[in-house]
Amino acid sequence: MLILTDPSEMQRSAMGLRRNGLKLALVPTMGCLHEGHLSLVREAARRADRVIVSLFVNPAQFGPGEDFARYPRPFEHDAALCRGAGVHILFAPAPEDMYAPDASVFVDEGRISRGLCGSSRPGHFKGVLTVVTKLFNLCRPDLAVFGRKDAQQARLIRQMARDLNFPVEIVVAPTVREGDGLAMSSRNRYLSGPDRKKATCLHSALQAARAAFEAGERGGAALKAIIGRRIAETPGAAVEYVEIVDAESFEPAAVVRRPALAALAVRLGATRLIDNIELTPEPQAEGAPPPPEDRAGTL
Amino acid sequence: MLILTDPSEMQRSAMGLRRNGLKLALVPTMGCLHEGHLSLVREAARRADRVIVSLFVNPAQFGPGEDFARYPRPFEHDAALCRGAGVHILFAPAPEDMYAPDASVFVDEGRISRGLCGSSRPGHFKGVLTVVTKLFNLCRPDLAVFGRKDAQQARLIRQMARDLNFPVEIVVAPTVREGDGLAMSSRNRYLSGPDRKKATCLHSALQAARAAFEAGERGGAALKAIIGRRIAETPGAAVEYVEIVDAESFEPAAVVRRPALAALAVRLGATRLIDNIELTPEPQAEGAPPPPEDRAGTL
Repeated sequence: MLILTDPSEMQRSAMGLRRNGLKLALVPTMGCLHEGHLSLVREAARRADRVIVSLFVNPAQFGPGEDFARYPRPFEHDAALCRGAGVHILFAPAPEDMYAPDASVFVDEGRISRGLCGSSRPGHFKGVLTVVTKLFNLCRPDLAVFGRKDAQQARLIRQMARDLNFPVEIVVAPTVREGDGLAMSSRNRYLSGPDRKKATCLHSALQAARAAFEAGERGGAALKAIIGRRIAETPGAAVEYVEIVDAESFEPAAVVRRPALAALAVRLGATRLIDNIELTPEPQAEGAPPPPEDRAGTL
Repeated sequence: MLILTDPSEMQRSAMGLRRNGLKLALVPTMGCLHEGHLSLVREAARRADRVIVSLFVNPAQFGPGEDFARYPRPFEHDAALCRGAGVHILFAPAPEDMYAPDASVFVDEGRISRGLCGSSRPGHFKGVLTVVTKLFNLCRPDLAVFGRKDAQQARLIRQMARDLNFPVEIVVAPTVREGDGLAMSSRNRYLSGPDRKKATCLHSALQAARAAFEAGERGGAALKAIIGRRIAETPGAAVEYVEIVDAESFEPAAVVRRPALAALAVRLGATRLIDNIELTPEPQAEGAPPPPEDRAGTL
């Protein structure tokens, strides 16, 4: 496995591999890798000749007062996991090599990014879209794999690839969960023992909404209330948002008639966690694929 | 010469040419080609194996009330000029094939784009940077050639290529002028006979500023006043802006101590014209290149 830190060297390597006819997959990460990331790497390896993992805690997507400084950076452990997973290039640039002091050009989005995490973390998706543009230009992938846990991010990156004509296929892979249902996240390690137990409330609240949905409930407000009640039963869990949104537009859904997401952000102490599930109203037509949660695909 | 209108086909062609090891140059235009554009094509041909000219009147860079609808579109004439100049691919997409109805991702800049044309045409450079990003992704050039007449645009595109890590060399080619000094522009054909004669005031005002500069004047306000007076002497010419700006930061220069630009926008009737010249204070050190106006290079 090649470890590269110089953006120009990364770009030269990627362009060289492409010239040799190799298909490249990129898995962008902020490091502190877990089984969720490794599932993305495996999906990437299934679809390409070479897998590039980028490992970059991107300052531009953290707001003031967020956890940029304390975000865990266990580099040696991450590198070992990548090596074990058959990654070909680990690209780990320093922030000062990614952003010039007078950098002033950015990528942003005006609609899908407004609600949910975009509303509670102003500037977050501008930082994400800008750095992913940079990573696409540096790593020149044929495809890039993102996790479904960050559903709004994945939707925005698909929009970006289309609107800016990046020749990059966007693959969205299923959320990987702990045995008790907690979605895997690098931020789970912030949780104290008691908070770690309470953190299962996110998944169980979403499951309660899904159960009601499967029993016929289609009202967005009713589904939100079910989720909200479950979180409220957990002492110390503070809802940042709970929304039922259209899976395509990310507009709030008053009534779920088309594929939707139930999504939430919850704080446990100083730790912010997010999760989501899909709510798909009709049984699909003939030749229907398996439910989206069980396979990697376009979000 | 290949004429392509389908963005996907353009992208496939460009990627195929690159895989074959060919060096690609892009000259983005809005058509209505003149000798200025052709000088960019020649510069491109000197530096690459294949020249792509894009011809796209980009709705996103026109404001309400601007001349998008009446912008001249003499396609057959443009195609003939390209063919004569040895262009390999003429890429002429339709607006609806470039922008999805629900397009929402954009590229913008927060500092260099604020003054001059950015101030008088809100949203203009957002439209320019977004479409150039799209063209870079569709045409996958090794280098792209822009005209120095649009100095702020060229500076912004250089900033964008750097900040977003596009592997595209940005070449800026000298302004081509009519015999009487008027900078060539597709918009010159809007001018009535009398206005065409008056339009020489832009260049002569800039020349007057340069003469004062060469005689030792370094004050931004004084140089602006010289330009403003010359324009004011021309009946019917209305100044939109006159600025002396640092050639790198595009901040107004109170005193010219580093390379600067004298730039202006003037209206003659309904026609808006722009022009600029470089003001370079010191004689350069040993091995100095010729003055920038006389050669293509990085702005």
